[in-house]
Amino acid sequence: MSTDERWFPGHLKDLSVDECHERLAQHQVGRVAYCDEHGPVVVPVNYTWDEDGVLLRVSPHSTLARELASAQAAFQVDEFDTYTQSGWSVLVRGRAKYVDAADEPAAERLFPWPEGQRTLHVRIEGTEVTGRRIVPA
Amino acid sequence: MSTDERWFPGHLKDLSVDECHERLAQHQVGRVAYCDEHGPVVVPVNYTWDEDGVLLRVSPHSTLARELASAQAAFQVDEFDTYTQSGWSVLVRGRAKYVDAADEPAAERLFPWPEGQRTLHVRIEGTEVTGRRIVPA
Repeated sequence: MSTDERWFPGHLKDLSVDECHERLAQHQVGRVAYCDEHGPVVVPVNYTWDEDGVLLRVSPHSTLARELASAQAAFQVDEFDTYTQSGWSVLVRGRAKYVDAADEPAAERLFPWPEGQRTLHVRIEGTEVTGRRIVPA
Repeated sequence: MSTDERWFPGHLKDLSVDECHERLAQHQVGRVAYCDEHGPVVVPVNYTWDEDGVLLRVSPHSTLARELASAQAAFQVDEFDTYTQSGWSVLVRGRAKYVDAADEPAAERLFPWPEGQRTLHVRIEGTEVTGRRIVPA
Protein backbone atom coordinates (compact mmCIF):
# COMPACT_ATOMS: atom_id res chain seq x y z
CA MET A 1 0.00 0.00 0.00
CA SER A 2 1.47 3.37 -0.98
CA THR A 3 1.13 6.54 1.10
CA ASP A 4 -1.65 7.72 -1.23
CA GLU A 5 -3.70 4.57 -0.88
CA ARG A 6 -3.86 4.42 2.88
CA TRP A 7 -6.62 5.72 5.11
CA PHE A 8 -6.22 8.70 7.35
CA PRO A 9 -4.84 7.51 10.69
CA GLY A 10 -7.50 6.29 13.12
CA HIS A 11 -8.24 7.48 16.62
CA LEU A 12 -7.48 5.33 19.67
CA LYS A 13 -10.15 5.36 22.38
CA ASP A 14 -10.21 3.55 25.72
CA LEU A 15 -12.99 1.04 26.33
CA SER A 16 -14.86 1.16 29.62
CA VAL A 17 -14.56 -1.83 31.96
CA ASP A 18 -18.17 -2.78 31.06
CA GLU A 19 -17.35 -2.69 27.35
CA CYS A 20 -14.31 -4.90 28.01
CA HIS A 21 -16.37 -7.43 30.00
CA GLU A 22 -19.02 -7.51 27.25
CA ARG A 23 -16.41 -8.32 24.60
CA LEU A 24 -14.79 -10.97 26.81
CA ALA A 25 -18.22 -12.58 27.31
CA GLN A 26 -19.03 -12.56 23.57
CA HIS A 27 -15.85 -14.24 22.36
CA GLN A 28 -14.62 -17.83 22.40
CA VAL A 29 -10.94 -17.59 21.49
CA GLY A 30 -8.22 -15.42 23.00
CA ARG A 31 -4.55 -15.59 23.78
CA VAL A 32 -2.96 -16.48 27.08
CA ALA A 33 0.50 -15.05 27.78
CA TYR A 34 3.16 -15.92 30.32
CA CYS A 35 6.83 -15.08 30.83
CA ASP A 36 9.59 -17.68 30.91
CA GLU A 37 13.37 -17.16 31.12
CA HIS A 38 13.46 -16.12 27.42
CA GLY A 39 10.67 -13.55 27.64
CA PRO A 40 6.97 -13.61 26.80
CA VAL A 41 5.04 -16.48 25.18
CA VAL A 42 1.59 -16.00 23.59
CA VAL A 43 -0.65 -19.02 22.96
CA PRO A 44 -4.21 -19.02 21.54
CA VAL A 45 -6.86 -20.89 23.52
CA ASN A 46 -10.63 -21.09 23.67
CA TYR A 47 -12.08 -19.93 26.99
CA THR A 48 -15.09 -18.81 28.95
CA TRP A 49 -15.47 -15.63 30.92
CA ASP A 50 -17.43 -14.88 34.10
CA GLU A 51 -17.23 -12.34 36.92
CA ASP A 52 -14.16 -14.10 38.39
CA GLY A 53 -12.11 -13.83 35.20
CA VAL A 54 -11.02 -16.12 32.39
CA LEU A 55 -11.39 -19.90 32.60
CA LEU A 56 -9.25 -22.24 30.46
CA ARG A 57 -8.78 -25.99 30.17
CA VAL A 58 -5.30 -27.33 29.55
CA SER A 59 -3.53 -30.68 29.59
CA PRO A 60 -1.98 -31.32 33.05
CA HIS A 61 1.27 -32.42 31.37
CA SER A 62 1.66 -29.38 29.12
CA THR A 63 4.08 -26.46 29.23
CA LEU A 64 1.04 -24.23 29.68
CA ALA A 65 0.01 -26.13 32.82
CA ARG A 66 3.51 -25.80 34.28
CA GLU A 67 3.81 -22.10 33.44
CA LEU A 68 0.34 -21.20 34.72
CA ALA A 69 0.56 -23.10 38.03
CA SER A 70 0.91 -19.86 39.98
CA ALA A 71 2.21 -16.98 37.93
CA GLN A 72 1.41 -13.53 36.64
CA ALA A 73 -0.36 -14.08 33.34
CA ALA A 74 -2.32 -12.12 30.75
CA PHE A 75 -5.22 -12.89 28.47
CA GLN A 76 -6.01 -10.95 25.32
CA VAL A 77 -8.90 -10.84 22.83
CA ASP A 78 -9.26 -8.59 19.80
CA GLU A 79 -10.97 -8.12 16.46
CA PHE A 80 -9.76 -6.11 13.43
CA ASP A 81 -10.96 -5.06 10.02
CA THR A 82 -7.93 -4.55 7.77
CA TYR A 83 -10.05 -2.79 5.12
CA THR A 84 -11.20 0.07 7.36
CA GLN A 85 -8.12 -0.26 9.63
CA SER A 86 -10.34 -0.38 12.68
CA GLY A 87 -10.80 -2.76 15.58
CA TRP A 88 -10.54 -3.26 19.31
CA SER A 89 -8.58 -5.24 21.90
CA VAL A 90 -9.01 -6.17 25.55
CA LEU A 91 -6.25 -7.20 27.95
CA VAL A 92 -6.76 -9.03 31.25
CA ARG A 93 -3.79 -9.07 33.64
CA GLY A 94 -3.81 -11.15 36.79
CA ARG A 95 -2.61 -14.25 38.56
CA ALA A 96 -3.14 -17.66 37.01
CA LYS A 97 -4.05 -20.54 39.31
CA TYR A 98 -5.49 -24.04 39.12
CA VAL A 99 -9.14 -24.35 40.15
CA ASP A 100 -11.50 -27.23 40.83
CA ALA A 101 -14.06 -27.65 38.04
CA ALA A 102 -16.67 -28.66 40.63
CA ASP A 103 -16.50 -25.13 42.09
CA GLU A 104 -16.79 -23.44 38.69
CA PRO A 105 -20.23 -23.20 37.07
CA ALA A 106 -18.58 -21.71 33.95
CA ALA A 107 -16.72 -25.02 33.44
CA GLU A 108 -19.96 -26.55 32.17
CA ARG A 109 -19.80 -24.52 28.99
CA LEU A 110 -16.05 -24.90 28.34
CA PHE A 111 -14.92 -27.52 25.79
CA PRO A 112 -11.38 -27.28 24.44
CA TRP A 113 -11.14 -27.19 20.66
CA PRO A 114 -8.13 -29.54 20.42
CA GLU A 115 -8.25 -33.22 21.25
CA GLY A 116 -6.44 -34.61 24.30
CA GLN A 117 -7.04 -34.90 28.02
CA ARG A 118 -7.37 -31.22 28.87
CA THR A 119 -8.64 -31.93 32.35
CA LEU A 120 -6.90 -29.13 34.22
CA HIS A 121 -8.92 -25.95 34.78
CA VAL A 122 -6.95 -22.71 35.01
CA ARG A 123 -8.35 -19.39 36.10
CA ILE A 124 -6.78 -16.05 35.21
CA GLU A 125 -8.12 -13.50 37.66
CA GLY A 126 -9.68 -10.47 36.07
CA THR A 127 -8.19 -7.98 38.50
CA GLU A 128 -6.99 -5.57 35.81
CA VAL A 129 -9.03 -5.33 32.61
CA THR A 130 -8.32 -2.64 30.02
CA GLY A 131 -9.25 -2.19 26.39
CA ARG A 132 -8.94 0.14 23.44
CA ARG A 133 -10.49 0.52 20.06
CA ILE A 134 -9.24 2.21 16.96
CA VAL A 135 -11.92 3.99 14.98
CA PRO A 136 -11.45 5.31 11.44
CA ALA A 137 -10.61 9.01 11.15
CA MET B 1 -22.95 -24.77 23.31
CA SER B 2 -23.91 -28.10 24.93
CA THR B 3 -21.82 -31.25 24.76
CA ASP B 4 -24.06 -32.58 21.99
CA GLU B 5 -23.72 -29.52 19.81
CA ARG B 6 -19.94 -29.29 19.73
CA TRP B 7 -17.61 -30.63 17.05
CA PHE B 8 -15.30 -33.54 17.60
CA PRO B 9 -12.02 -32.22 18.99
CA GLY B 10 -9.58 -31.02 16.33
CA HIS B 11 -6.03 -32.13 15.66
CA LEU B 12 -3.07 -29.86 16.41
CA LYS B 13 -0.30 -29.88 13.79
CA ASP B 14 2.99 -27.97 13.71
CA LEU B 15 3.54 -25.52 10.87
CA SER B 16 6.88 -25.61 9.03
CA VAL B 17 9.11 -22.52 9.28
CA ASP B 18 8.25 -21.72 5.63
CA GLU B 19 4.53 -21.91 6.40
CA CYS B 20 5.07 -19.58 9.38
CA HIS B 21 7.00 -17.06 7.26
CA GLU B 22 4.30 -17.14 4.58
CA ARG B 23 1.58 -16.34 7.12
CA LEU B 24 3.67 -13.57 8.69
CA ALA B 25 4.19 -12.04 5.22
CA GLN B 26 0.47 -12.20 4.35
CA HIS B 27 -0.84 -10.47 7.44
CA GLN B 28 -0.93 -6.84 8.57
CA VAL B 29 -1.89 -7.01 12.24
CA GLY B 30 -0.36 -9.04 15.05
CA ARG B 31 0.34 -8.74 18.74
CA VAL B 32 3.60 -7.69 20.35
CA ALA B 33 4.28 -8.99 23.86
CA TYR B 34 6.77 -7.96 26.53
CA CYS B 35 7.24 -8.68 30.24
CA ASP B 36 7.19 -6.00 32.92
CA GLU B 37 7.35 -6.39 36.71
CA HIS B 38 3.70 -7.53 36.78
CA GLY B 39 4.04 -10.17 34.06
CA PRO B 40 3.25 -10.24 30.36
CA VAL B 41 1.57 -7.50 28.31
CA VAL B 42 0.05 -8.13 24.86
CA VAL B 43 -0.64 -5.21 22.50
CA PRO B 44 -2.00 -5.36 18.94
CA VAL B 45 -0.03 -3.51 16.25
CA ASN B 46 0.16 -3.42 12.47
CA TYR B 47 3.54 -4.53 11.12
CA THR B 48 5.58 -5.67 8.16
CA TRP B 49 7.66 -8.80 7.93
CA ASP B 50 10.89 -9.52 6.03
CA GLU B 51 13.80 -11.96 6.36
CA ASP B 52 15.15 -10.05 9.39
CA GLY B 53 11.95 -10.36 11.39
CA VAL B 54 9.04 -8.14 12.37
CA LEU B 55 9.14 -4.36 11.88
CA LEU B 56 6.90 -2.02 13.92
CA ARG B 57 6.47 1.74 14.28
CA VAL B 58 5.76 3.16 17.70
CA SER B 59 5.69 6.55 19.38
CA PRO B 60 9.09 7.36 20.94
CA HIS B 61 7.33 8.51 24.15
CA SER B 62 5.18 5.39 24.58
CA THR B 63 5.34 2.58 27.10
CA LEU B 64 5.90 0.26 24.14
CA ALA B 65 9.00 2.23 23.10
CA ARG B 66 10.42 2.05 26.62
CA GLU B 67 9.69 -1.66 27.03
CA LEU B 68 11.04 -2.63 23.60
CA ALA B 69 14.29 -0.63 23.81
CA SER B 70 16.32 -3.79 24.28
CA ALA B 71 14.35 -6.68 25.65
CA GLN B 72 13.17 -10.20 24.94
CA ALA B 73 9.89 -9.81 23.12
CA ALA B 74 7.40 -11.91 21.17
CA PHE B 75 5.15 -11.30 18.22
CA GLN B 76 2.06 -13.36 17.43
CA VAL B 77 -0.37 -13.64 14.52
CA ASP B 78 -3.33 -15.98 14.19
CA GLU B 79 -6.63 -16.62 12.45
CA PHE B 80 -9.60 -18.69 13.66
CA ASP B 81 -12.95 -19.89 12.47
CA THR B 82 -15.25 -20.37 15.46
CA TYR B 83 -17.80 -22.29 13.38
CA THR B 84 -15.45 -25.12 12.33
CA GLN B 85 -13.26 -24.61 15.45
CA SER B 86 -10.16 -24.47 13.26
CA GLY B 87 -7.34 -21.99 12.78
CA TRP B 88 -3.61 -21.37 13.05
CA SER B 89 -1.14 -19.27 15.00
CA VAL B 90 2.49 -18.23 14.59
CA LEU B 91 4.80 -17.04 17.36
CA VAL B 92 8.06 -15.12 16.84
CA ARG B 93 10.39 -14.92 19.84
CA GLY B 94 13.49 -12.74 19.81
CA ARG B 95 15.15 -9.54 20.94
CA ALA B 96 13.50 -6.21 20.27
CA LYS B 97 15.71 -3.28 19.29
CA TYR B 98 15.42 0.17 17.75
CA VAL B 99 16.52 0.40 14.11
CA ASP B 100 17.15 3.23 11.65
CA ALA B 101 14.37 3.46 9.05
CA ALA B 102 16.97 4.49 6.45
CA ASP B 103 18.54 1.00 6.74
CA GLU B 104 15.19 -0.80 6.46
CA PRO B 105 13.65 -1.18 2.99
CA ALA B 106 10.55 -2.73 4.66
CA ALA B 107 9.91 0.62 6.41
CA GLU B 108 8.64 2.02 3.09
CA ARG B 109 5.51 -0.11 3.29
CA LEU B 110 4.79 0.37 7.01
CA PHE B 111 2.15 2.94 8.00
CA PRO B 112 0.76 2.76 11.55
CA TRP B 113 -3.02 2.56 11.74
CA PRO B 114 -3.39 4.99 14.67
CA GLU B 115 -2.67 8.69 14.45
CA GLY B 116 0.31 10.23 16.26
CA GLN B 117 4.04 10.62 15.71
CA ARG B 118 5.00 6.95 15.51
CA THR B 119 8.47 7.73 14.26
CA LEU B 120 10.41 5.05 16.11
CA HIS B 121 11.09 1.83 14.20
CA VAL B 122 11.39 -1.33 16.28
CA ARG B 123 12.62 -4.66 14.99
CA ILE B 124 11.80 -7.99 16.66
CA GLU B 125 14.35 -10.48 15.43
CA GLY B 126 12.87 -13.61 13.95
CA THR B 127 15.36 -15.99 15.53
CA GLU B 128 12.73 -18.44 16.78
CA VAL B 129 9.57 -18.84 14.71
CA THR B 130 7.06 -21.59 15.45
CA GLY B 131 3.47 -22.19 14.49
CA ARG B 132 0.59 -24.60 14.82
CA ARG B 133 -2.76 -25.14 13.26
CA ILE B 134 -5.84 -26.87 14.51
CA VAL B 135 -7.72 -28.81 11.86
CA PRO B 136 -11.22 -30.22 12.32
CA ALA B 137 -11.37 -33.90 13.27
